[in-house]
Amino acid sequence: MINAGIIGASGYTGGELMRLLLNHPEVNITAATSRKLAGQAVSDTHRHLKSFLDLKFENLSPEEIKSACDVVFVAVPHGTAMDIVPELLDGEVKVIDLSADYRLKTADFEQAYDMKHRDPREAVYGLVELHPEVSEQTFIANPGCYPTGANLAAAPLAKAGVINSVIFDSKSGITGAGINPSAVSHYPNMAENVQAYKLTSHRHLAEFVQELNRLDNSLKNISFTPHVVPSIRGILTTAHVFTKDTMGVDEVRALYEEMYMDKPFVRLVDGSPSLGDVRGSNFCDIGFEVDERNNRVVVVSAIDNLVKGASGQAIQNMNMICGFNETAGLWSAAAAP
Amino acid sequence: MINAGIIGASGYTGGELMRLLLNHPEVNITAATSRKLAGQAVSDTHRHLKSFLDLKFENLSPEEIKSACDVVFVAVPHGTAMDIVPELLDGEVKVIDLSADYRLKTADFEQAYDMKHRDPREAVYGLVELHPEVSEQTFIANPGCYPTGANLAAAPLAKAGVINSVIFDSKSGITGAGINPSAVSHYPNMAENVQAYKLTSHRHLAEFVQELNRLDNSLKNISFTPHVVPSIRGILTTAHVFTKDTMGVDEVRALYEEMYMDKPFVRLVDGSPSLGDVRGSNFCDIGFEVDERNNRVVVVSAIDNLVKGASGQAIQNMNMICGFNETAGLWSAAAAP
Amino acid sequence: MINAGIIGASGYTGGELMRLLLNHPEVNITAATSRKLAGQAVSDTHRHLKSFLDLKFENLSPEEIKSACDVVFVAVPHGTAMDIVPELLDGEVKVIDLSADYRLKTADFEQAYDMKHRDPREAVYGLVELHPEVSEQTFIANPGCYPTGANLAAAPLAKAGVINSVIFDSKSGITGAGINPSAVSHYPNMAENVQAYKLTSHRHLAEFVQELNRLDNSLKNISFTPHVVPSIRGILTTAHVFTKDTMGVDEVRALYEEMYMDKPFVRLVDGSPSLGDVRGSNFCDIGFEVDERNNRVVVVSAIDNLVKGASGQAIQNMNMICGFNETAGLWSAAAAP
Amino acid sequence: MINAGIIGASGYTGGELMRLLLNHPEVNITAATSRKLAGQAVSDTHRHLKSFLDLKFENLSPEEIKSACDVVFVAVPHGTAMDIVPELLDGEVKVIDLSADYRLKTADFEQAYDMKHRDPREAVYGLVELHPEVSEQTFIANPGCYPTGANLAAAPLAKAGVINSVIFDSKSGITGAGINPSAVSHYPNMAENVQAYKLTSHRHLAEFVQELNRLDNSLKNISFTPHVVPSIRGILTTAHVFTKDTMGVDEVRALYEEMYMDKPFVRLVDGSPSLGDVRGSNFCDIGFEVDERNNRVVVVSAIDNLVKGASGQAIQNMNMICGFNETAGLWSAAAAP
Repeated sequence: MINAGIIGASGYTGGELMRLLLNHPEVNITAATSRKLAGQAVSDTHRHLKSFLDLKFENLSPEEIKSACDVVFVAVPHGTAMDIVPELLDGEVKVIDLSADYRLKTADFEQAYDMKHRDPREAVYGLVELHPEVSEQTFIANPGCYPTGANLAAAPLAKAGVINSVIFDSKSGITGAGINPSAVSHYPNMAENVQAYKLTSHRHLAEFVQELNRLDNSLKNISFTPHVVPSIRGILTTAHVFTKDTMGVDEVRALYEEMYMDKPFVRLVDGSPSLGDVRGSNFCDIGFEVDERNNRVVVVSAIDNLVKGASGQAIQNMNMICGFNETAGLWSAAAAP
Repeated sequence: MINAGIIGASGYTGGELMRLLLNHPEVNITAATSRKLAGQAVSDTHRHLKSFLDLKFENLSPEEIKSACDVVFVAVPHGTAMDIVPELLDGEVKVIDLSADYRLKTADFEQAYDMKHRDPREAVYGLVELHPEVSEQTFIANPGCYPTGANLAAAPLAKAGVINSVIFDSKSGITGAGINPSAVSHYPNMAENVQAYKLTSHRHLAEFVQELNRLDNSLKNISFTPHVVPSIRGILTTAHVFTKDTMGVDEVRALYEEMYMDKPFVRLVDGSPSLGDVRGSNFCDIGFEVDERNNRVVVVSAIDNLVKGASGQAIQNMNMICGFNETAGLWSAAAAP
Repeated sequence: MINAGIIGASGYTGGELMRLLLNHPEVNITAATSRKLAGQAVSDTHRHLKSFLDLKFENLSPEEIKSACDVVFVAVPHGTAMDIVPELLDGEVKVIDLSADYRLKTADFEQAYDMKHRDPREAVYGLVELHPEVSEQTFIANPGCYPTGANLAAAPLAKAGVINSVIFDSKSGITGAGINPSAVSHYPNMAENVQAYKLTSHRHLAEFVQELNRLDNSLKNISFTPHVVPSIRGILTTAHVFTKDTMGVDEVRALYEEMYMDKPFVRLVDGSPSLGDVRGSNFCDIGFEVDERNNRVVVVSAIDNLVKGASGQAIQNMNMICGFNETAGLWSAAAAP
Repeated sequence: MINAGIIGASGYTGGELMRLLLNHPEVNITAATSRKLAGQAVSDTHRHLKSFLDLKFENLSPEEIKSACDVVFVAVPHGTAMDIVPELLDGEVKVIDLSADYRLKTADFEQAYDMKHRDPREAVYGLVELHPEVSEQTFIANPGCYPTGANLAAAPLAKAGVINSVIFDSKSGITGAGINPSAVSHYPNMAENVQAYKLTSHRHLAEFVQELNRLDNSLKNISFTPHVVPSIRGILTTAHVFTKDTMGVDEVRALYEEMYMDKPFVRLVDGSPSLGDVRGSNFCDIGFEVDERNNRVVVVSAIDNLVKGASGQAIQNMNMICGFNETAGLWSAAAAP
């Protein structure tokens, strides 16, 4: 058994880390920090965890966290993690950062997030299916929610070098906007609606480019437009992939089967995947169809933004760097419908 | 005052035609046919029309309809309208067909719908904003729901001849699947979900191609993928338009303003449009953003699939062919939120 | 034509007043005030009103409003209206107050709202169906949303003096919580949920008691529990009415038919009413069933909280006090589904 | 390890039984029957179970099932189970019936379900919290979804003999209507709606009466009205309990704490419970408030209709009759929000 702590545990990813870790056979949760809620019971905020967790939010220093934990999840906003991570890393503790701060090369981060990086540092990008090297690390930058589902949808074609251009049209549930009420989470604005936003300029695009270019550095034409849909959880990404030549269905399927053959959390499905089949679980379901008329392959992926898109993937990373089974604590099916 | 009849009045488009015509200052509803519900009160099926309409569904012959009506809306499934329309057209009555049967050139119809056409005939395609010639007709083929919003989103760029390729990624409300319960309208399947379907092969694509090629017959690369979202009404279409050269925001805006300057039902909006702002109304709201990095213009349009995407547009066509004001009976704002 | 102004026009009831007044044949909207948004176009906030309304929010004094308007709707929070109304009433202008400030006898108000009333004054309670005397007034207190649907559901039985006790269990859409985002309007909290609140202590109870006791002053046992449901608009109230003696279906129906015979906005329906059939409209649909086993009559009413529960009813009151047809500007069916 | 089989495994309760049993440390799923889907993979229907279950639906005789299983769950419609159960019970196998067939005394069943019982037989009613005697049984009648949440809400007060009358006003998610599409599960009918139905005559009322009268046989005045709300899962029941005398908050709380002190799946919560906090889990969350004005205690309970209201409770019963820990396989928190 190891001890795990969560810095910034009052939000959705913090709550989800705890929900999942409570099912993990190798982990005790020993610390959950929140400056604002220090002293309050965790289950007063995350009411679904009542009866499971007898823990209070604390306001702990990095030293205190390091002494209480073997692994630490950092679940604070981007721009904040870079002040916490360096102090954690000067010791024995393993760190998984769920913010955007260490996902990109420093220059790319500074451009995408329009801020100076105060802790330029290399980290492994924790999209486990594409980065087997995570297992040797002590520090992981956990991927963004949109890039996780989108890059898994396009990776086999990118790796094969067949992509001419790709447009990712993503539809996200509303928890992506966080636990604090705002106009974009206001029920009367979002129910019965689909809201496109940042049509051409979402910051996650830099993660799409970085990861797909790792697989095919000649691939230049990558576009991304996100939308919010009336769903609590989930991201469905429709990847319109234009290929250099016309591809057959079997040819495409072979690329996906080869890449994901031994990846337990990627499921190739017939037809188009549904958010309900992955909700609450760490799966990325992928389906596709070939449009021979336009040399287009339409690949659709479905993830739960809070699980495979955040906290579940963070635990998958923890499993890898701690030497546990990749699926430990995560091998549950969605509660569909 | 004219008399209007609806053939196939038991479904959603029938109900919506009646709701809107009840507000029309120049129209009496004199016939509503339904073979299955003949003899029952219309307001037993369309309960929201109680107190407005004291009409029973009837099973009328074309002769009976022609004698009772000045204008007839045909709201039957595709493949059925072609057996009804010819009998209606051999008289004085004006006809607006909401099915797919007369929207396409006969050969294109037969390919897209995989059936022999039993009444090959030319009709004007009733997308009023692009077809001013509707006003001189007695027979109109009312456009499909997806092509209406999508073609209005792309038309100014197509007409300017600047499009290299375009991908339409559409998100439709569930009334698009009709009034009869099925797996795709089953609440537990569709709530909290986004369902892509017919990823590469939706039949409406033929209407995209026909209409955009009328504006630019060199435009070849047109793709379309529809999705269903948890909304009763509405279609949001995200048009990813790749242009031949980089375009500036002002240049793009000028094209839209010029084309839609005097079109009362197209509103150019700042930012991305919302389904709530058009719900129940005949508007098509359009917003856009330019992605200079990829020579992409992202245009987003929002319509109510049952109004501008079906019954409202049919009444707009009626207004044109009957010499009424284009907005008669349709000039109401959405009940947002 | 008369001129109408709205004080506090930036919220949902303000937007809805304008949407409905735009359809009114006898009214011009000449003023819409908002201290916070003064100078901004109304249609920047109420985007669905674009193309209909070329008006800016203003910050007007009572004197300025009185000079610009024949009738004024006050749509500010309770506790604020009492500072505005007295200045409006010392002139020619007619006033309809949508806040709670003048709905109750002063002592009852002070107890229910736990504040001192700064303008004790009698007003007529504008539930038109129960208060025919509204037509002679210049000042109306518009009823609360919950009491409107609930009191209409119980009134015929109360008037007949047959009620022993009544429990109102109401289910409200989320616009009831207003236009400003909060925890109770946060999509992830409210979607897929039903939230009971103020189980025994909602302030609207005082309006239930006042109005039902007007009809039967011996009726003591009145209970009310509100809930929020995942719907933008609408209130469904289930009134569990225990009667002194066992009543037959016909006997009950006769009471409802008699009371609502000539009330255009109350529709008696077979079975249980649906929110969709009243959405966006000024109707109150009512259905009932008799439970002879327990001397219980279950009466269910459905209204749109923003229309019959607020702005539509305010316009119905305006119609009465201005001598217009009761249904002027309000005679539209819901856009169902 | 024991072997479990499910008769009628193609519906929602069948799917949920399998999802939960897959997490159970003591159970193998060895048979899943469906006459209609025999030969098809279970995960073609229950797509969320892909990668977990390599099982096909079969059409098995009772003999075959008995030889393959130690425990059998019967998840067929009421009226059908009574033809299957007798054949299963003449052997070693333990049986948990999720239908209504054995929940009531034979005469009560025949009246409530308006059919002749073909296998009159006593069974223990498997509401574990109220029936500790389940642990000695080999045959259990699993309770209905509405009575589970409602009776747990009222039981402590009933047992204390303080209830004068009680009205249960329940709000159910739409999976309660089953996996087959119908008008009551049609998204456009149910989204943005609350639908009351069987206002006075739902068959589950007989289970309310039976169980509450077991606790207080003088309690006569029990009323029940169900509603469907736009939620996939969940039942929120608002119990309006009128007590013989005025009760204090502490007095009420003491009754609930005493009864549920050692019941792991009942959680007493502050304020009103939420469906999200129990979704996918076997909990029944209960909150209450006292209305001294009317001698009313308003108790609100929240369950997941498919888990505590059906399949989870069935597994809880299995745990009891097989000698496992009561919480085995069920000790997971809801994936909230």
